[in-house]
Amino acid sequence: MGSLDSNPATFDAFAAEADGFQPLNADDVRSYLHKSVDFIYDYYKSVESLPVLPGVEPGYLRRLLQCAPPSAAAPFDIAMKELREAVVPGMTHWASPNFFAFFPATNSAAAIAGELIASAMNTVGFTWQANPAATEMEVLALDWLAQLLRLPASFLMHRTDAGEGRGTGGGVILGTTSEAMLVTLVAARDAALRRMGSSGVAGITRLVVYAADQTHSTFFKACRLTGFDPANIRSIPTGADTDYGLDPTKLLEAMQADVDTGLVPTYVCATVGTTSTNAVDPVGAIADVAARFNAWVHVDAAYAGSACICPEFRHHLDGVERVDSISMSPHKWLMTCLDCTCLWVRDAHRLTDSLETNPEYLKNGASDSGAVTDLKDMQVGVGRRFRGLKLWMVMRTYGAARLQEHIRSDVAMAKMFEESVRSDDRFEVVVPRNFALVCFRIKPHGGGMTTEEDADGANHELMERLNRTGKAYLAHTVVGGKFVLRFAVGSSLQEERHVRSAWELIRKTTDEIMEGEKKCVHEDGC
Amino acid sequence: MGSLDSNPATFDAFAAEADGFQPLNADDVRSYLHKSVDFIYDYYKSVESLPVLPGVEPGYLRRLLQCAPPSAAAPFDIAMKELREAVVPGMTHWASPNFFAFFPATNSAAAIAGELIASAMNTVGFTWQANPAATEMEVLALDWLAQLLRLPASFLMHRTDAGEGRGTGGGVILGTTSEAMLVTLVAARDAALRRMGSSGVAGITRLVVYAADQTHSTFFKACRLTGFDPANIRSIPTGADTDYGLDPTKLLEAMQADVDTGLVPTYVCATVGTTSTNAVDPVGAIADVAARFNAWVHVDAAYAGSACICPEFRHHLDGVERVDSISMSPHKWLMTCLDCTCLWVRDAHRLTDSLETNPEYLKNGASDSGAVTDLKDMQVGVGRRFRGLKLWMVMRTYGAARLQEHIRSDVAMAKMFEESVRSDDRFEVVVPRNFALVCFRIKPHGGGMTTEEDADGANHELMERLNRTGKAYLAHTVVGGKFVLRFAVGSSLQEERHVRSAWELIRKTTDEIMEGEKKCVHEDGC
Repeated sequence: MGSLDSNPATFDAFAAEADGFQPLNADDVRSYLHKSVDFIYDYYKSVESLPVLPGVEPGYLRRLLQCAPPSAAAPFDIAMKELREAVVPGMTHWASPNFFAFFPATNSAAAIAGELIASAMNTVGFTWQANPAATEMEVLALDWLAQLLRLPASFLMHRTDAGEGRGTGGGVILGTTSEAMLVTLVAARDAALRRMGSSGVAGITRLVVYAADQTHSTFFKACRLTGFDPANIRSIPTGADTDYGLDPTKLLEAMQADVDTGLVPTYVCATVGTTSTNAVDPVGAIADVAARFNAWVHVDAAYAGSACICPEFRHHLDGVERVDSISMSPHKWLMTCLDCTCLWVRDAHRLTDSLETNPEYLKNGASDSGAVTDLKDMQVGVGRRFRGLKLWMVMRTYGAARLQEHIRSDVAMAKMFEESVRSDDRFEVVVPRNFALVCFRIKPHGGGMTTEEDADGANHELMERLNRTGKAYLAHTVVGGKFVLRFAVGSSLQEERHVRSAWELIRKTTDEIMEGEKKCVHEDGC
Repeated sequence: MGSLDSNPATFDAFAAEADGFQPLNADDVRSYLHKSVDFIYDYYKSVESLPVLPGVEPGYLRRLLQCAPPSAAAPFDIAMKELREAVVPGMTHWASPNFFAFFPATNSAAAIAGELIASAMNTVGFTWQANPAATEMEVLALDWLAQLLRLPASFLMHRTDAGEGRGTGGGVILGTTSEAMLVTLVAARDAALRRMGSSGVAGITRLVVYAADQTHSTFFKACRLTGFDPANIRSIPTGADTDYGLDPTKLLEAMQADVDTGLVPTYVCATVGTTSTNAVDPVGAIADVAARFNAWVHVDAAYAGSACICPEFRHHLDGVERVDSISMSPHKWLMTCLDCTCLWVRDAHRLTDSLETNPEYLKNGASDSGAVTDLKDMQVGVGRRFRGLKLWMVMRTYGAARLQEHIRSDVAMAKMFEESVRSDDRFEVVVPRNFALVCFRIKPHGGGMTTEEDADGANHELMERLNRTGKAYLAHTVVGGKFVLRFAVGSSLQEERHVRSAWELIRKTTDEIMEGEKKCVHEDGC
């Protein structure tokens, strides 16, 4: 042990208690973690049998647990007991193989292990010096993932073509896509203001941002957070003619119209795999339009980006070499537990110009040298966890082969589900299935269900009944005015049998609804 | 097991491989986590002997690990081996008991266990329905902590005085103080624009924000991110006369001067425990000044807020009942691993007015009822981890008693160090020690060190030499133009003996520097 000489000559006696509180006592840590691992093992073994969506009422937990913080310490087993008895019954089990809502939060043994180790090391790598390994691991993980995605070398901090040399691009791991949008919006905003010669932010009222109406609501929120004028946030209508993807012609018209009235197109957000229906905006065509106006293009590939590690899906990113930034979230579909959103920018300086800080207490030789990356300058905050470790562990342990297998397996299961839906003529698949999300609905077909409105009601009823069983959880969306069920495959414990069972449950529940409708028509003429 | 009926009648055969990839196989999870726990146990047992600050060069990790992602899967042991051999040697060990830099990232067995379980459950509680238990646990943990801090009931989502009834306040756990600042800045900005009757954001150029010059740089960055005009971000000078706390008279003068020129005071940030020197801005007096102008007051108590769970430190928050929001970070000094920043606001609606979104795919009956909290509407992003669990586990397991003991033990060790510094007349304590941070320096005292400039050089040299030993890591700041060393006590494995050893090392290294100076004066007259 390299402990220092500890001659206490110059100290007055300090009443150190031999039994003083040691929050990180290694034996306690091991004991608590072993108990946690046992809990997790049991949880994964039993989660399939738990209702996916709990039946608790608002305020239930407060009624089960004490309202005031305890004064005295308690054995860790007490917290674990309350976790089992009070918390678990009120959970929506995203880990359940019967979870088909939203997008699954995929996970893996390697990711959880990486996150655990990061939590125990608990470093704060705001600057390179504050944890060189964490900074370099994050850069490495981002470069690896960029290679899996075949992103252009211009996005990489370290170009790999010649094996050496520093790129002008850069990446950072953030908590959410929203933050990726926020920081790139700020960079684009500030660059536009500089180009306009704006005095301070005076020109901000002239800046305009664009996205398809299918873009995640968090984009429109990020625009407001960063001070764009609500009147200048364009939501461009899409329709079935483009499968709800952004039409570049409409984008061009909107941008040109704004320029004609003296406004300044500043930023376009293109989505690869929208939340609602997995629509794909045409990245290359959008980049070409935006280039005419010198507007920043960001690609939000939060969910579907992961699929692009497979050659057969990579075409959805065609044209990415002409955009300014791209983000995707391994915490969605790359088996990396929350949170983990990767952002790459083509010119890292455009980001750091807006986000850099340099307080005295963080100054150090390495930063001054310019030879290192200080990741605090690419995010909103200063503090940051050891974010790269779990993502690196996932890629290191599973390799490209397993990661691709995971994507393909989910897509195959979704395809299987889609075929089942298509084989039952009471249903329709509403939009083309691009990845592992199937958007479907009961269609109007006579009986008690002749109008679209009737069908909407039946689909709503179907969702509610399914979710009440606790045996499946599906969410919905509205597409082209129709109420549509979203069936998202991919929860990490999911197997083919769960998808089959869910389809059987959907069929059976639909039978019941149809029976009810018929009875209603027959008996009451209602 | 409640698995569903899985009659595959309606399905074509799907080539399920019995040996298909199972990323969350419970046996693998247990095995990987047991290996991780063994690693963590060994790490805590040995971290004291590792150099706190590593001697690696920029780019070191890329030279040790492969530059390209592997194609094939590898045993988890490979990742663990590379972690041990390549990552650990390049780490700045925040967990080392010889870490005295920045503020310590305190941690505990209960927190790590809570985070592990949250990572395994991996839920995304954006709305109440998406995980009722996670939302209610977060609200409960915040209410508990608010009670420990004796925050006014108006900040609580659930008032506790009568035991029942819903407060108008609200809390949320965020990743960083910066995000807490950002969201409250946006709320204050939008409220001010509405009051002005601004058309869109046109009035933004008239809004002004205020903070002491000792306020964390991330505040000034958050102001820029949210679109405030750089010319309207006031950094009010402080000095030794107020121990570097904000002078309310100067604040009043600045706000009045702005009003006189037609500007609109919008937001004041008060800090309890600045990063540089732990200065404390007078919360109540600042609230009184701000009230004259209807400006939002936010209290940033990121570090020192934790101390306020002890009655003897609570006075630093006096007047908090008159502010609009307060944030503090249990990931700094309340034994909760990163990340965990708690934000409370007095009127939750002022926050949600700016942050609420309501996309179709997140609509649900519980949200529509208005009876639940959807935490996505109090943060930047949508996705969010099971954030409350680890904080609740810390309070549940250690209780107020242990938490207070932990704070007091750190403060006692800091006091001990301070007394040692004061007992050596080559040193001075530069500002009063408020919590567990001691700001000190070698003072000019003749010999080769007669000027402040000489002393600055010696202190810089002292820090560099200390940090190079690997046996201690201290950071610095500049106060009143002087280069000052920051000695932050509290790393969770730290004991009295580590503080003693560090002081001995400081004394010995100072002896060497002084010897060198004397020799230099003697031999060269330089």
